Amino acid sequence: MTQTIQITAIAHVASGRSAAIDDDWGEVHAKIVLTDDFTPDALAGLQDFSHIEVIFHFDKVLPEKIETGARHPRNNKNWPLVGIFAQRGKNRPNRIGSTICRLVSVSGKTIEVSGLDAIDRTPILDIKPVMQEFLPREKTSQPNWATELMKGYWQK
Amino acid sequence: MTQTIQITAIAHVASGRSAAIDDDWGEVHAKIVLTDDFTPDALAGLQDFSHIEVIFHFDKVLPEKIETGARHPRNNKNWPLVGIFAQRGKNRPNRIGSTICRLVSVSGKTIEVSGLDAIDRTPILDIKPVMQEFLPREKTSQPNWATELMKGYWQK
Repeated sequence: MTQTIQITAIAHVASGRSAAIDDDWGEVHAKIVLTDDFTPDALAGLQDFSHIEVIFHFDKVLPEKIETGARHPRNNKNWPLVGIFAQRGKNRPNRIGSTICRLVSVSGKTIEVSGLDAIDRTPILDIKPVMQEFLPREKTSQPNWATELMKGYWQK
Repeated sequence: MTQTIQITAIAHVASGRSAAIDDDWGEVHAKIVLTDDFTPDALAGLQDFSHIEVIFHFDKVLPEKIETGARHPRNNKNWPLVGIFAQRGKNRPNRIGSTICRLVSVSGKTIEVSGLDAIDRTPILDIKPVMQEFLPREKTSQPNWATELMKGYWQK
């Protein structure tokens, strides 16, 4: 059964970074601005959280580039062939990104953040506060390729 | 500018819990089964991660119940009036849920997880591996109401 779901952007990114670069996202400052469908009260109280989770749409990924099976992460043959749902790359079904970033300030309908790995004008689908209880409650583990891939992601 | 984005379920939840209950989700075991659009290779290598992030659709929430401004979390007047994007409740624009849960096993097109707070038949929009580098790199902070609200969420 194929179920189609309609989603609407609730905000957009305003950032100095307008190209999808693989690494060095940590120091990027960006703004998230709610669309005309909202008033500032949709963000009331958000400033009491240190971090937010931003769910966004990789709208620049062409549909024909979407991977539905397995591939080498970043097409790097040194890393194993892994399924698209075992990696976080952007060329994925539904083209959804999800990142936890630091909240810098909230003013009216604008949120300032740092460490959001989404380029200028990216449509945002949801914003959630990070609650400690929603983070892993046990130690996490991951394969070596993921640790290697992430080495320069936030800071080169 | 209103941008509509088409999304398709990539999997569904199979769980013994079929009602949206507020608390006690920690011990719930559930299965995630990929749709006919995928083959098992979409999950290759996923078993090397201890946790996955599941992005899903609260499809049982009626559109007229969606909050776009501020409300008391769980309609509890003891907690402050906060914006819908400063809480994680299900009656939110785009009705998107996002939860990190423990991966128990992967077999064919089925993932077994524990601690997924989505009911039976919930459409799943994306599955991502949890990489430690995508978790907050600083200590998080949150308001007291959030800590109180989460007290019985995973375990009563």
